[in-house]
Amino acid sequence: MSTHTRTLHSGRRDELIREEPLLIVAGEQQLVTMRTPGDDEHLALGFLRSEGVIDELAQVSSCHFQPGDPQAQRPDRVEIELRNVDASRLRGRLTRTHELRSSCGLCGLTDAEALLDELEPCLPGVPRLSRATLQSLREDFERRQVLFARTGACHGAALYGEELALLGFGEDVGRHNALDKAIGRALRSGAKFTRAIALLSGRAGYDLVLKCLRLRIPVIASVSAPSALGFDLCHAAGSTLVGFLRRDRLEVYTDTGRLADD
Amino acid sequence: MSTHTRTLHSGRRDELIREEPLLIVAGEQQLVTMRTPGDDEHLALGFLRSEGVIDELAQVSSCHFQPGDPQAQRPDRVEIELRNVDASRLRGRLTRTHELRSSCGLCGLTDAEALLDELEPCLPGVPRLSRATLQSLREDFERRQVLFARTGACHGAALYGEELALLGFGEDVGRHNALDKAIGRALRSGAKFTRAIALLSGRAGYDLVLKCLRLRIPVIASVSAPSALGFDLCHAAGSTLVGFLRRDRLEVYTDTGRLADD
Repeated sequence: MSTHTRTLHSGRRDELIREEPLLIVAGEQQLVTMRTPGDDEHLALGFLRSEGVIDELAQVSSCHFQPGDPQAQRPDRVEIELRNVDASRLRGRLTRTHELRSSCGLCGLTDAEALLDELEPCLPGVPRLSRATLQSLREDFERRQVLFARTGACHGAALYGEELALLGFGEDVGRHNALDKAIGRALRSGAKFTRAIALLSGRAGYDLVLKCLRLRIPVIASVSAPSALGFDLCHAAGSTLVGFLRRDRLEVYTDTGRLADD
Repeated sequence: MSTHTRTLHSGRRDELIREEPLLIVAGEQQLVTMRTPGDDEHLALGFLRSEGVIDELAQVSSCHFQPGDPQAQRPDRVEIELRNVDASRLRGRLTRTHELRSSCGLCGLTDAEALLDELEPCLPGVPRLSRATLQSLREDFERRQVLFARTGACHGAALYGEELALLGFGEDVGRHNALDKAIGRALRSGAKFTRAIALLSGRAGYDLVLKCLRLRIPVIASVSAPSALGFDLCHAAGSTLVGFLRRDRLEVYTDTGRLADD
Protein backbone atom coordinates (compact mmCIF):
# COMPACT_ATOMS: atom_id res chain seq x y z
CA MET A 1 0.00 0.00 0.00
CA SER A 2 2.85 2.42 0.76
CA THR A 3 5.12 1.19 -2.03
CA HIS A 4 4.96 0.50 -5.76
CA THR A 5 6.94 -2.22 -7.52
CA ARG A 6 8.91 -1.15 -10.58
CA THR A 7 11.21 -2.95 -13.01
CA LEU A 8 14.74 -1.56 -12.95
CA HIS A 9 17.09 -1.34 -15.93
CA SER A 10 18.66 -4.67 -14.96
CA GLY A 11 15.29 -6.36 -15.10
CA ARG A 12 15.23 -6.75 -11.32
CA ARG A 13 11.96 -5.79 -9.62
CA ASP A 14 12.21 -3.36 -6.72
CA GLU A 15 9.92 -1.72 -4.20
CA LEU A 16 9.85 2.09 -4.35
CA ILE A 17 8.27 4.38 -1.80
CA ARG A 18 5.07 6.07 -2.99
CA GLU A 19 4.93 9.87 -3.04
CA GLU A 20 1.48 11.18 -3.89
CA PRO A 21 -0.74 14.15 -3.14
CA LEU A 22 -3.08 14.29 -0.16
CA LEU A 23 -5.57 17.11 0.22
CA ILE A 24 -6.31 18.14 3.81
CA VAL A 25 -9.60 20.03 3.97
CA ALA A 26 -10.78 21.89 7.08
CA GLY A 27 -13.74 24.16 6.45
CA GLU A 28 -12.83 26.53 3.65
CA GLN A 29 -9.11 26.02 4.15
CA GLN A 30 -7.18 23.37 2.32
CA LEU A 31 -3.63 22.26 1.80
CA VAL A 32 -2.01 19.68 -0.44
CA THR A 33 1.01 17.70 0.71
CA MET A 34 3.01 15.06 -1.13
CA ARG A 35 3.08 12.07 1.19
CA THR A 36 3.37 8.31 1.33
CA PRO A 37 -0.17 6.88 1.40
CA GLY A 38 -1.17 5.23 4.67
CA ASP A 39 -2.00 6.66 8.08
CA ASP A 40 -3.49 9.71 6.37
CA GLU A 41 -5.93 10.60 9.14
CA HIS A 42 -3.08 10.54 11.64
CA LEU A 43 -1.04 12.72 9.31
CA ALA A 44 -3.80 15.32 9.13
CA LEU A 45 -4.49 15.31 12.88
CA GLY A 46 -0.79 15.47 13.71
CA PHE A 47 -0.30 18.35 11.29
CA LEU A 48 -3.15 20.36 12.84
CA ARG A 49 -1.71 19.82 16.33
CA SER A 50 1.98 20.30 15.53
CA GLU A 51 1.32 23.47 13.55
CA GLY A 52 -0.73 24.91 16.38
CA VAL A 53 -4.14 24.97 14.66
CA ILE A 54 -5.66 22.90 17.48
CA ASP A 55 -4.58 22.44 21.10
CA GLU A 56 -6.42 19.20 21.77
CA LEU A 57 -8.24 16.41 20.00
CA ALA A 58 -11.58 17.58 21.43
CA GLN A 59 -11.48 20.40 18.88
CA VAL A 60 -11.85 17.85 16.07
CA SER A 61 -15.52 16.93 15.54
CA SER A 62 -14.79 14.54 12.69
CA CYS A 63 -11.89 13.34 10.58
CA HIS A 64 -12.41 11.06 7.57
CA PHE A 65 -10.21 9.74 4.81
CA GLN A 66 -11.77 9.76 1.33
CA PRO A 67 -9.96 7.89 -1.42
CA GLY A 68 -9.41 9.90 -4.60
CA ASP A 69 -10.12 9.07 -8.19
CA PRO A 70 -7.09 9.32 -10.49
CA GLN A 71 -9.34 9.15 -13.58
CA ALA A 72 -11.12 12.31 -12.47
CA GLN A 73 -7.86 13.93 -11.28
CA ARG A 74 -9.24 13.90 -7.74
CA PRO A 75 -6.59 13.30 -5.05
CA ASP A 76 -7.03 11.38 -1.83
CA ARG A 77 -8.33 13.67 0.87
CA VAL A 78 -8.88 13.92 4.61
CA GLU A 79 -11.93 15.97 5.54
CA ILE A 80 -11.91 17.50 8.97
CA GLU A 81 -14.54 19.38 10.95
CA LEU A 82 -13.27 21.55 13.76
CA ARG A 83 -14.96 23.29 16.66
CA ASN A 84 -13.81 26.12 18.88
CA VAL A 85 -10.91 26.94 16.61
CA ASP A 86 -9.83 30.51 16.09
CA ALA A 87 -10.44 31.17 12.37
CA SER A 88 -7.28 33.25 12.06
CA ARG A 89 -5.17 30.40 13.43
CA LEU A 90 -6.70 28.08 10.90
CA ARG A 91 -6.13 30.52 8.06
CA GLY A 92 -2.63 31.38 9.12
CA ARG A 93 -1.39 27.89 9.86
CA LEU A 94 -2.96 25.62 7.29
CA THR A 95 -0.07 26.31 4.96
CA ARG A 96 3.41 24.93 4.81
CA THR A 97 5.82 27.06 6.77
CA HIS A 98 7.99 27.75 3.73
CA GLU A 99 5.32 30.01 2.40
CA LEU A 100 5.42 33.73 2.97
CA ARG A 101 2.46 35.03 4.90
CA SER A 102 1.86 37.73 7.41
CA SER A 103 1.69 35.27 10.27
CA CYS A 104 4.59 33.08 9.25
CA GLY A 105 6.71 34.32 12.10
CA LEU A 106 9.92 33.76 10.20
CA CYS A 107 10.63 37.05 8.45
CA GLY A 108 13.63 38.63 10.01
CA LEU A 109 13.83 36.04 12.72
CA THR A 110 17.12 34.49 13.54
CA ASP A 111 16.16 34.70 17.14
CA ALA A 112 14.93 31.50 18.73
CA GLU A 113 13.27 33.26 21.66
CA ALA A 114 10.99 35.24 19.39
CA LEU A 115 9.91 32.04 17.64
CA LEU A 116 9.05 30.55 21.03
CA ASP A 117 7.05 33.58 22.16
CA GLU A 118 3.70 31.84 22.27
CA LEU A 119 4.98 28.55 23.65
CA GLU A 120 5.29 27.29 27.19
CA PRO A 121 8.70 25.88 28.15
CA CYS A 122 9.19 22.13 28.63
CA LEU A 123 8.62 20.63 32.08
CA PRO A 124 11.98 20.61 33.85
CA GLY A 125 13.62 17.41 35.06
CA VAL A 126 11.29 14.92 33.37
CA PRO A 127 11.63 12.35 32.08
CA ARG A 128 14.86 11.13 33.71
CA LEU A 129 16.71 8.86 31.37
CA SER A 130 20.10 7.34 30.64
CA ARG A 131 22.18 7.00 27.52
CA ALA A 132 21.54 3.26 27.64
CA THR A 133 17.79 3.93 27.54
CA LEU A 134 18.21 6.13 24.48
CA GLN A 135 20.19 3.37 22.79
CA SER A 136 17.40 0.85 23.54
CA LEU A 137 14.85 3.23 22.05
CA ARG A 138 17.06 3.65 18.97
CA GLU A 139 17.13 -0.11 18.49
CA ASP A 140 13.36 -0.29 18.81
CA PHE A 141 12.97 2.66 16.41
CA GLU A 142 15.23 1.06 13.80
CA ARG A 143 13.34 -2.23 13.99
CA ARG A 144 10.08 -0.43 13.28
CA GLN A 145 11.34 1.31 10.14
CA VAL A 146 10.26 -1.43 7.76
CA LEU A 147 9.41 0.90 4.88
CA PHE A 148 12.89 2.37 5.07
CA ALA A 149 14.39 -1.11 5.06
CA ARG A 150 12.37 -1.99 1.96
CA THR A 151 12.80 1.24 -0.01
CA GLY A 152 15.81 3.19 1.32
CA ALA A 153 14.02 6.51 0.74
CA CYS A 154 11.84 7.03 3.74
CA HIS A 155 11.94 9.03 6.97
CA GLY A 156 10.73 7.81 10.33
CA ALA A 157 9.65 9.33 13.64
CA ALA A 158 8.64 7.75 16.94
CA LEU A 159 7.31 9.03 20.25
CA TYR A 160 7.88 7.14 23.49
CA GLY A 161 6.20 7.82 26.82
CA GLU A 162 6.52 6.76 30.42
CA GLU A 163 7.85 3.24 30.93
CA LEU A 164 9.19 3.75 27.39
CA ALA A 165 5.90 2.67 25.84
CA LEU A 166 5.46 3.58 22.18
CA LEU A 167 2.99 6.47 21.83
CA GLY A 168 3.15 6.88 18.08
CA PHE A 169 5.20 5.99 15.03
CA GLY A 170 5.20 7.16 11.44
CA GLU A 171 7.08 6.58 8.20
CA ASP A 172 6.84 8.80 5.15
CA VAL A 173 8.84 10.08 2.20
CA GLY A 174 8.71 13.48 3.94
CA ARG A 175 10.35 14.27 7.29
CA HIS A 176 7.45 16.49 8.43
CA ASN A 177 4.88 13.91 7.50
CA ALA A 178 6.61 11.09 9.39
CA LEU A 179 6.59 13.18 12.55
CA ASP A 180 3.00 14.36 12.02
CA LYS A 181 1.87 10.73 11.58
CA ALA A 182 3.54 9.78 14.87
CA ILE A 183 1.99 12.79 16.63
CA GLY A 184 -1.47 12.13 15.16
CA ARG A 185 -1.40 8.52 16.29
CA ALA A 186 -0.30 9.49 19.79
CA LEU A 187 -2.95 12.21 19.95
CA ARG A 188 -5.72 9.76 19.03
CA SER A 189 -4.63 7.33 21.73
CA GLY A 190 -4.82 10.08 24.34
CA ALA A 191 -1.08 10.24 25.00
CA LYS A 192 0.50 12.94 27.13
CA PHE A 193 3.34 14.68 25.33
CA THR A 194 4.92 16.63 28.17
CA ARG A 195 7.07 13.68 29.33
CA ALA A 196 7.61 12.12 25.90
CA ILE A 197 10.75 11.35 23.93
CA ALA A 198 10.83 11.98 20.17
CA LEU A 199 13.15 10.04 17.86
CA LEU A 200 13.80 11.44 14.38
CA SER A 201 15.50 9.67 11.47
CA GLY A 202 16.85 12.88 9.93
CA ARG A 203 18.40 16.12 11.09
CA ALA A 204 16.88 18.20 13.88
CA GLY A 205 16.00 21.24 11.78
CA TYR A 206 14.05 24.17 13.19
CA ASP A 207 10.81 22.93 11.64
CA LEU A 208 10.70 19.49 13.29
CA VAL A 209 12.03 20.90 16.55
CA LEU A 210 9.31 23.53 16.58
CA LYS A 211 6.63 20.89 16.00
CA CYS A 212 7.94 18.99 19.04
CA LEU A 213 8.18 22.11 21.19
CA ARG A 214 4.59 23.13 20.38
CA LEU A 215 3.66 19.84 22.10
CA ARG A 216 6.16 20.57 24.90
CA ILE A 217 8.00 17.31 24.12
CA PRO A 218 11.00 17.56 26.47
CA VAL A 219 13.46 15.15 24.78
CA ILE A 220 14.29 15.22 21.06
CA ALA A 221 16.81 12.69 19.73
CA SER A 222 17.94 12.70 16.12
CA VAL A 223 20.06 10.28 14.11
CA SER A 224 21.80 13.27 12.53
CA ALA A 225 22.85 16.78 13.63
CA PRO A 226 20.71 19.77 14.56
CA SER A 227 20.80 23.05 12.68
CA ALA A 228 21.94 26.10 14.64
CA LEU A 229 18.33 27.31 14.87
CA GLY A 230 17.17 23.86 16.00
CA PHE A 231 19.80 23.97 18.74
CA ASP A 232 18.86 27.51 19.80
CA LEU A 233 15.16 26.61 20.02
CA CYS A 234 15.85 23.60 22.26
CA HIS A 235 18.19 25.64 24.41
CA ALA A 236 15.63 28.41 24.85
CA ALA A 237 12.76 26.00 25.55
CA GLY A 238 14.71 23.99 28.11
CA SER A 239 14.39 20.75 26.17
CA THR A 240 17.00 18.02 25.87
CA LEU A 241 18.46 17.67 22.38
CA VAL A 242 20.48 14.61 21.41
CA GLY A 243 22.13 14.22 18.00
CA PHE A 244 24.00 11.49 16.13
CA LEU A 245 22.07 8.85 18.06
CA ARG A 246 23.80 5.83 16.53
CA ARG A 247 25.11 2.49 17.70
CA ASP A 248 28.58 3.88 18.41
CA ARG A 249 27.82 7.53 19.11
CA LEU A 250 25.53 9.85 21.06
CA GLU A 251 26.02 13.60 21.25
CA VAL A 252 24.19 15.64 23.88
CA TYR A 253 23.60 19.12 22.47
CA THR A 254 21.41 20.58 25.21
CA ASP A 255 20.20 19.18 28.52
CA THR A 256 18.84 20.55 31.78
CA GLY A 257 19.28 17.57 34.06
CA ARG A 258 17.17 14.89 32.41
CA LEU A 259 20.07 12.73 31.26
CA ALA A 260 21.95 10.74 33.89
CA ASP A 261 25.69 10.37 33.43
CA ASP A 262 25.45 6.53 33.32
CA MET B 1 29.50 32.38 7.28
CA SER B 2 27.34 29.28 6.71
CA THR B 3 27.76 27.90 10.22
CA HIS B 4 27.41 29.08 13.82
CA THR B 5 29.54 27.81 16.69
CA ARG B 6 27.67 26.65 19.76
CA THR B 7 28.73 25.17 23.11
CA LEU B 8 27.36 21.66 23.65
CA HIS B 9 26.32 20.17 26.98
CA SER B 10 29.78 18.61 27.39
CA GLY B 11 31.41 22.00 27.05
CA ARG B 12 32.79 21.11 23.63
CA ARG B 13 32.37 23.76 20.92
CA ASP B 14 30.81 22.60 17.66
CA GLU B 15 29.92 24.04 14.27
CA LEU B 16 26.22 23.89 13.41
CA ILE B 17 24.72 24.60 10.02
CA ARG B 18 22.79 27.88 9.82
CA GLU B 19 19.12 27.78 8.84
CA GLU B 20 17.67 31.26 8.35
CA PRO B 21 15.03 33.01 6.27
CA LEU B 22 15.71 34.47 2.85
CA LEU B 23 13.13 36.59 1.09
CA ILE B 24 13.10 36.29 -2.71
CA VAL B 25 11.35 39.29 -4.24
CA ALA B 26 10.40 39.49 -7.93
CA GLY B 27 8.06 42.37 -8.74
CA GLU B 28 5.02 42.08 -6.51
CA GLN B 29 5.62 38.39 -5.85
CA GLN B 30 7.66 37.18 -2.94
CA LEU B 31 8.56 33.96 -1.18
CA VAL B 32 10.45 33.15 1.99
CA THR B 33 12.61 30.09 2.26
CA MET B 34 14.66 28.79 5.18
CA ARG B 35 18.15 28.32 3.84
CA THR B 36 21.81 28.24 4.78
CA PRO B 37 23.25 31.73 4.14
CA GLY B 38 25.71 31.95 1.26
CA ASP B 39 25.25 31.77 -2.52
CA ASP B 40 21.88 33.45 -2.13
CA GLU B 41 21.78 35.02 -5.59
CA HIS B 42 22.49 31.62 -7.12
CA LEU B 43 19.75 30.12 -4.98
CA ALA B 44 17.22 32.67 -6.23
CA LEU B 45 18.24 32.35 -9.90
CA GLY B 46 18.27 28.56 -9.72
CA PHE B 47 14.85 28.54 -8.08
CA LEU B 48 13.35 30.73 -10.82
CA ARG B 49 14.79 28.47 -13.53
CA SER B 50 14.09 25.10 -11.92
CA GLU B 51 10.50 26.04 -11.08
CA GLY B 52 9.89 27.19 -14.64
CA VAL B 53 9.41 30.93 -13.98
CA ILE B 54 12.19 31.78 -16.46
CA ASP B 55 13.60 29.82 -19.40
CA GLU B 56 16.93 31.62 -19.68
CA LEU B 57 19.14 34.02 -17.78
CA ALA B 58 18.42 36.81 -20.31
CA GLN B 59 15.00 37.18 -18.65
CA VAL B 60 16.70 38.43 -15.48
CA SER B 61 17.49 42.17 -15.72
CA SER B 62 19.02 42.37 -12.27
CA CYS B 63 19.59 40.18 -9.22
CA HIS B 64 20.98 41.63 -6.00
CA PHE B 65 21.50 40.32 -2.49
CA GLN B 66 20.56 42.74 0.31
CA PRO B 67 21.61 41.84 3.84
CA GLY B 68 18.82 42.01 6.40
CA ASP B 69 18.66 43.69 9.77
CA PRO B 70 17.75 41.35 12.64
CA GLN B 71 17.12 44.35 14.95
CA ALA B 72 14.41 45.60 12.60
CA GLN B 73 13.13 42.04 11.95
CA ARG B 74 14.11 42.43 8.30
CA PRO B 75 15.39 39.21 6.69
CA ASP B 76 18.11 38.90 4.09
CA ARG B 77 16.63 39.30 0.63
CA VAL B 78 17.41 38.83 -3.04
CA GLU B 79 15.71 41.38 -5.26
CA ILE B 80 15.14 40.36 -8.84
CA GLU B 81 13.89 42.26 -11.85
CA LEU B 82 12.54 40.16 -14.69
CA ARG B 83 11.67 40.93 -18.28
CA ASN B 84 9.52 39.07 -20.78
CA VAL B 85 8.12 36.79 -18.10
CA ASP B 86 4.52 35.67 -18.26
CA ALA B 87 2.88 37.20 -15.17
CA SER B 88 0.77 34.10 -14.55
CA ARG B 89 3.86 31.88 -14.53
CA LEU B 90 5.43 34.18 -11.97
CA ARG B 91 2.30 34.21 -9.83
CA GLY B 92 1.73 30.49 -10.11
CA ARG B 93 5.29 29.37 -9.53
CA LEU B 94 6.80 31.69 -6.96
CA THR B 95 5.48 29.49 -4.22
CA ARG B 96 6.73 26.25 -2.79
CA THR B 97 5.17 23.29 -4.49
CA HIS B 98 3.69 21.97 -1.25
CA GLU B 99 1.17 24.77 -1.36
CA LEU B 100 -2.25 24.25 -2.83
CA ARG B 101 -2.95 26.51 -5.76
CA SER B 102 -4.89 26.25 -8.98
CA SER B 103 -1.73 25.80 -11.02
CA CYS B 104 0.05 23.42 -8.69
CA GLY B 105 -0.38 20.56 -11.11
CA LEU B 106 -0.37 18.02 -8.31
CA CYS B 107 -4.02 17.57 -7.40
CA GLY B 108 -5.14 14.16 -8.42
CA LEU B 109 -1.92 13.42 -10.21
CA THR B 110 -0.27 10.12 -9.68
CA ASP B 111 0.52 10.11 -13.35
CA ALA B 112 4.04 11.10 -14.31
CA GLU B 113 3.14 11.80 -17.91
CA ALA B 114 0.65 14.48 -16.95
CA LEU B 115 3.29 16.19 -14.78
CA LEU B 116 5.64 16.21 -17.78
CA ASP B 117 3.05 17.63 -20.14
CA GLU B 118 4.78 20.95 -20.70
CA LEU B 119 8.31 19.56 -20.77
CA GLU B 120 10.47 18.42 -23.65
CA PRO B 121 12.06 14.98 -23.26
CA CYS B 122 15.79 14.61 -22.59
CA LEU B 123 18.18 14.36 -25.57
CA PRO B 124 18.64 10.64 -26.30
CA GLY B 125 22.04 8.95 -26.15
CA VAL B 126 24.00 11.81 -24.55
CA PRO B 127 26.13 11.99 -22.58
CA ARG B 128 27.71 8.53 -22.90
CA LEU B 129 29.27 7.50 -19.64
CA SER B 130 30.49 4.52 -17.65
CA ARG B 131 29.95 3.36 -14.10
CA ALA B 132 33.60 4.19 -13.41
CA THR B 133 32.96 7.79 -14.50
CA LEU B 134 30.02 8.04 -12.13
CA GLN B 135 32.20 6.75 -9.31
CA SER B 136 34.85 9.39 -10.10
CA LEU B 137 32.18 12.09 -10.01
CA ARG B 138 30.93 10.74 -6.69
CA GLU B 139 34.41 11.05 -5.24
CA ASP B 140 34.72 14.62 -6.51
CA PHE B 141 31.24 15.42 -5.16
CA GLU B 142 32.05 14.02 -1.71
CA ARG B 143 35.28 16.02 -1.51
CA ARG B 144 33.40 19.24 -2.21
CA GLN B 145 30.85 18.73 0.59
CA VAL B 146 32.86 20.56 3.21
CA LEU B 147 29.84 21.98 5.03
CA PHE B 148 28.46 18.48 5.41
CA ALA B 149 31.79 17.25 6.74
CA ARG B 150 31.82 20.07 9.30
CA THR B 151 28.17 19.98 10.39
CA GLY B 152 26.63 16.61 9.47
CA ALA B 153 23.29 18.27 8.66
CA CYS B 154 23.60 19.56 5.15
CA HIS B 155 22.57 18.48 1.67
CA GLY B 156 24.67 18.84 -1.47
CA ALA B 157 24.09 18.91 -5.23
CA ALA B 158 26.50 19.13 -8.15
CA LEU B 159 26.16 19.46 -11.91
CA TYR B 160 28.85 18.18 -14.26
CA GLY B 161 29.11 18.89 -17.98
CA GLU B 162 31.10 17.69 -20.95
CA GLU B 163 34.62 16.50 -20.15
CA LEU B 164 33.15 16.10 -16.64
CA ALA B 165 33.80 19.76 -15.80
CA LEU B 166 31.94 21.08 -12.77
CA LEU B 167 29.10 23.37 -13.87
CA GLY B 168 27.70 24.17 -10.45
CA PHE B 169 27.72 23.04 -6.84
CA GLY B 170 25.62 23.91 -3.81
CA GLU B 171 25.30 22.99 -0.14
CA ASP B 172 22.35 23.87 2.04
CA VAL B 173 20.30 22.65 4.97
CA GLY B 174 17.48 22.11 2.43
CA ARG B 175 17.61 19.60 -0.43
CA HIS B 176 15.81 21.93 -2.84
CA ASN B 177 18.07 24.82 -2.01
CA ALA B 178 21.27 22.85 -2.56
CA LEU B 179 20.11 21.89 -6.06
CA ASP B 180 18.86 25.42 -6.83
CA LYS B 181 22.24 26.86 -5.78
CA ALA B 182 24.04 24.46 -8.13
CA ILE B 183 21.62 25.28 -10.96
CA GLY B 184 21.89 29.05 -10.37
CA ARG B 185 25.67 28.93 -10.45
CA ALA B 186 25.68 26.87 -13.66
CA LEU B 187 23.12 29.22 -15.23
CA ARG B 188 25.24 32.28 -14.49
CA SER B 189 28.32 30.68 -16.06
CA GLY B 190 26.37 29.99 -19.25
CA ALA B 191 26.37 26.22 -18.89
CA LYS B 192 24.32 23.96 -21.12
CA PHE B 193 22.14 21.59 -19.16
CA THR B 194 21.00 19.19 -21.88
CA ARG B 195 24.13 17.00 -21.61
CA ALA B 196 24.71 17.49 -17.88
CA ILE B 197 24.90 15.02 -15.00
CA ALA B 198 23.28 15.89 -11.66
CA LEU B 199 24.51 14.39 -8.38
CA LEU B 200 22.23 14.58 -5.35
CA SER B 201 23.12 13.82 -1.72
CA GLY B 202 19.60 12.72 -0.76
CA ARG B 203 16.78 10.73 -2.28
CA ALA B 204 15.53 11.33 -5.82
CA GLY B 205 12.05 12.51 -4.93
CA TYR B 206 9.64 13.86 -7.52
CA ASP B 207 10.45 17.46 -6.62
CA LEU B 208 14.19 17.34 -7.29
CA VAL B 209 13.69 15.11 -10.31
CA LEU B 210 11.19 17.57 -11.76
CA LYS B 211 13.62 20.48 -11.25
CA CYS B 212 16.25 18.54 -13.23
CA LEU B 213 13.81 17.53 -15.97
CA ARG B 214 12.66 21.14 -16.46
CA LEU B 215 16.29 21.78 -17.44
CA ARG B 216 16.33 18.60 -19.55
CA ILE B 217 19.23 17.25 -17.48
CA PRO B 218 19.59 13.73 -18.91
CA VAL B 219 21.43 11.95 -16.04
CA ILE B 220 20.36 12.12 -12.39
CA ALA B 221 22.42 10.21 -9.81
CA SER B 222 21.43 10.06 -6.17
CA VAL B 223 23.20 8.72 -3.11
CA SER B 224 19.87 7.26 -1.95
CA ALA B 225 16.79 5.73 -3.60
CA PRO B 226 14.17 7.36 -5.83
CA SER B 227 10.51 7.55 -4.93
CA ALA B 228 8.09 5.74 -7.23
CA LEU B 229 7.02 9.08 -8.73
CA GLY B 230 10.66 10.14 -9.20
CA PHE B 231 11.26 6.87 -11.06
CA ASP B 232 8.15 7.26 -13.20
CA LEU B 233 9.11 10.83 -14.17
CA CYS B 234 12.59 9.78 -15.28
CA HIS B 235 11.19 6.82 -17.17
CA ALA B 236 8.65 8.98 -19.00
CA ALA B 237 11.21 11.73 -19.79
CA GLY B 238 13.83 9.30 -21.12
CA SER B 239 16.41 10.33 -18.55
CA THR B 240 18.94 8.08 -16.85
CA LEU B 241 18.32 7.60 -13.14
CA VAL B 242 20.98 6.12 -10.88
CA GLY B 243 20.44 5.45 -7.19
CA PHE B 244 22.54 4.30 -4.24
CA LEU B 245 25.63 5.83 -5.86
CA ARG B 246 28.10 4.76 -3.17
CA ARG B 247 31.60 3.39 -3.03
CA ASP B 248 30.44 -0.20 -3.13
CA ARG B 249 27.12 0.10 -4.93
CA LEU B 250 25.44 1.64 -7.96
CA GLU B 251 21.88 0.87 -8.99
CA VAL B 252 20.62 1.81 -12.46
CA TYR B 253 16.90 2.53 -12.21
CA THR B 254 16.26 3.85 -15.73
CA ASP B 255 18.51 4.22 -18.75
CA THR B 256 18.08 4.60 -22.50
CA GLY B 257 21.56 3.75 -23.73
CA ARG B 258 23.73 6.39 -22.04
CA LEU B 259 25.47 4.03 -19.63
CA ALA B 260 28.08 1.66 -21.05
CA ASP B 261 28.30 -1.80 -19.51
CA ASP B 262 31.97 -1.27 -18.47
